Amino acid sequence: MGAIWNAHVLGKSVKNKKVTDSKKMINFEGAYDAFFDGSLTALKEAGNYRYFANLERLADAFPIAMHHGPDGPKEVTVWCSNDYLGMGQNPMVRDAMVGAIGAQGAGAGGTRNISGTNHLHGALERSLANLHRKEAALIFTSGYVANMTTLSTLAGRLPGCIVYSDELNHNSMIEGIRHSKAQKRVFRHNDPAHLDELMAADDPAAPKLVAFESVYSMDGDIAPIGAILDVVEKHNGLSFLDEVHAVGMYGARGGGVAERDGVMDRVDIMQGTLAKAFGVIGGYIAASEKLVDFVRSFGNGFIFTSALPPAIAAGALKSIEILKNGQAIRARHQERAATLKRRLAEEGIPVLPSVTHIVPVFVGDPVKCRAASDMLMDVHAIYVQPINYPTVPKGTERLRITPTPLHDDASMDGLIAALNKVWEALDLERSTIDADLDQRVLKHAAL
Amino acid sequence: MGAIWNAHVLGKSVKNKKVTDSKKMINFEGAYDAFFDGSLTALKEAGNYRYFANLERLADAFPIAMHHGPDGPKEVTVWCSNDYLGMGQNPMVRDAMVGAIGAQGAGAGGTRNISGTNHLHGALERSLANLHRKEAALIFTSGYVANMTTLSTLAGRLPGCIVYSDELNHNSMIEGIRHSKAQKRVFRHNDPAHLDELMAADDPAAPKLVAFESVYSMDGDIAPIGAILDVVEKHNGLSFLDEVHAVGMYGARGGGVAERDGVMDRVDIMQGTLAKAFGVIGGYIAASEKLVDFVRSFGNGFIFTSALPPAIAAGALKSIEILKNGQAIRARHQERAATLKRRLAEEGIPVLPSVTHIVPVFVGDPVKCRAASDMLMDVHAIYVQPINYPTVPKGTERLRITPTPLHDDASMDGLIAALNKVWEALDLERSTIDADLDQRVLKHAAL
Repeated sequence: MGAIWNAHVLGKSVKNKKVTDSKKMINFEGAYDAFFDGSLTALKEAGNYRYFANLERLADAFPIAMHHGPDGPKEVTVWCSNDYLGMGQNPMVRDAMVGAIGAQGAGAGGTRNISGTNHLHGALERSLANLHRKEAALIFTSGYVANMTTLSTLAGRLPGCIVYSDELNHNSMIEGIRHSKAQKRVFRHNDPAHLDELMAADDPAAPKLVAFESVYSMDGDIAPIGAILDVVEKHNGLSFLDEVHAVGMYGARGGGVAERDGVMDRVDIMQGTLAKAFGVIGGYIAASEKLVDFVRSFGNGFIFTSALPPAIAAGALKSIEILKNGQAIRARHQERAATLKRRLAEEGIPVLPSVTHIVPVFVGDPVKCRAASDMLMDVHAIYVQPINYPTVPKGTERLRITPTPLHDDASMDGLIAALNKVWEALDLERSTIDADLDQRVLKHAAL
Repeated sequence: MGAIWNAHVLGKSVKNKKVTDSKKMINFEGAYDAFFDGSLTALKEAGNYRYFANLERLADAFPIAMHHGPDGPKEVTVWCSNDYLGMGQNPMVRDAMVGAIGAQGAGAGGTRNISGTNHLHGALERSLANLHRKEAALIFTSGYVANMTTLSTLAGRLPGCIVYSDELNHNSMIEGIRHSKAQKRVFRHNDPAHLDELMAADDPAAPKLVAFESVYSMDGDIAPIGAILDVVEKHNGLSFLDEVHAVGMYGARGGGVAERDGVMDRVDIMQGTLAKAFGVIGGYIAASEKLVDFVRSFGNGFIFTSALPPAIAAGALKSIEILKNGQAIRARHQERAATLKRRLAEEGIPVLPSVTHIVPVFVGDPVKCRAASDMLMDVHAIYVQPINYPTVPKGTERLRITPTPLHDDASMDGLIAALNKVWEALDLERSTIDADLDQRVLKHAAL
């Protein structure tokens, strides 16, 4: 193994074995730096290095924000926020947080087990269990940690568990499954027949865990949840459904696509986030009391970490309760997305075939994608982050646009006009998306 | 593998193979539940099941909090908070958070890459880099995620990397190292000579990463940082030092024990938390610009997760800046801990040999440890969480007391009196700790 490292990076220090100790160390230090530097340079050369847009949110102006760029601060319209419903700016949510800070202070003061459990955590967990019509819920510091911890704990501890994972599952699920060291089968994206084939080929008596998402966030497509659950039930598996891009936004009370489709009671483990439609931060699962208690008791990523601040719980709780009665905002959200898709199609701006609130505009080249984003920001005061590899496969680079209920018609006019100018300036493809491209997009490397 | 599961849990459903599909499923469902239930029952029987104390913090009354118990709410004195300096209740920290919510709203609105980077994140990272005298810093959603992501990314990507890990390292470090799939050597707790032996036995040209903590939180002992760094440097390794139980509390500006010991500039990667002495939530690393950019660019647990809310960044930033000038509060903290240790020793209450602000009182039995905690809470309105396996090894169960600068003499009188009564009622050992016990305590299973 050392040989690989030597060959790539340490050639010099290894050749000079007779240098002094301190010299050797300097060479080695240089070798580590050279390795980091080389990796970063390769990212940059491929156009995949990430430059973060430095934003200052403006509480009463969403989707307007202040962009702190190299030429100083400038107001821009954000068209790529995952604060999908603008709840992060909702005055009642803000007030709930401020109230909790005034009453209880900044942090929780410990892990859940050691002085960090707050009565607001309990209230939030009860509200989430109610949202998903499950016996219990458990909150985590993030959706990432919820996925990683729950999947690694279940798959790692159920004896001989086999995990079936949609090929486009989010990194947090992949890492959790990988960490469990359980056997893993990857089924073709949104393909219940393939899942059936894989499950049928395995020991019928082995415990099985099937992990998938409802809304896939980069393409905006939706899983055939009922058909997948049919297969899971046929083979006596547990179903784990990630609804992070759906909770708050789909279903009569914002329970997600599973609620909308009338199959939520058949999902064993509902997983969601408090950071997107609910506008705050944190993640959770909702499931049977025993399963939740099991993850609570054995999940390392839950046990060994500080609890969410009371104010975060208060804000999330308020947001969930508002959105349980949020049919109007959900309708407005869908209308905005449908309108934007229609208007882009009329202009010949290529939209990938999303059936959700996510509007992915195809560019297909990392450098042009970055250039389009830069031009939107610099010339048109519009912020849409370029989405490049590894978040999406090479050749499918895109501008992922997320219209919210707070983007009005004038704002949309501005976006369309700006995109038209950028498409002209960069000579980007105007044609509608063909079947081949759809296939390419759906063949993600599961990252 | 299925056989193990069958033998343990699924006997019934496997024997009844001719039942209908739905019946089979019910059996299987029952099997999953039976497995969860059996695992939880085993925990309970061993006295290791965790009951969370349901608290409501009281902003202006710390260390007093409201405990929501079975008999209704009751004010209690918290003696086990990891809000070590009470900064989670500092009015300036609270004001900073409230100000940020008013100005910027609840959540960050996205991942760091997709609309979630906030100018306050940048300010916080610059403050952390300055605190540790490093070129750069990177914040994560928690200290757990900071450890897991940084270690798994570095150890997983440096070709042929070998990781050396103190046997008592925190679960988040162990999981990160395990996730990297790198080769791992465990060195005896705080033993530079053993580390030297292990490093000397490996390929001198292989990249090496040495992970350890400064303050070990369950025993309150401190690593010989300088001596460990001597070994790391001799073998051209990178050093990763977890200072989560030290930042804000040790060193001239709260940079940690490495700052106190004058060796901070020799540590390659400083890791800390914003959730303990700084009183909010989140974790971070501080290191060279290239290393930080590498973790920023390749660390999945950093990339694929929503960013910390602006208000969290604002509160943490304020707290760090206050504690950079916090010599008085640090002195008071150390005085409180020393006074408590002395007073407990005078009473013959057995304190483990901590050299820090952590005051572990030995019980040595999980059931008695839980009973002592219950009696303190129910009879004396004092909250000290019992610490049982797997957080500490079996036979070393303890009450881990964390005096803060806000625990006054009267409060300490109450604690001492209550502990005396509990020690009598449960007939607990009064003798001082002997060398054998020290050895037992120091021989943790590294969980």
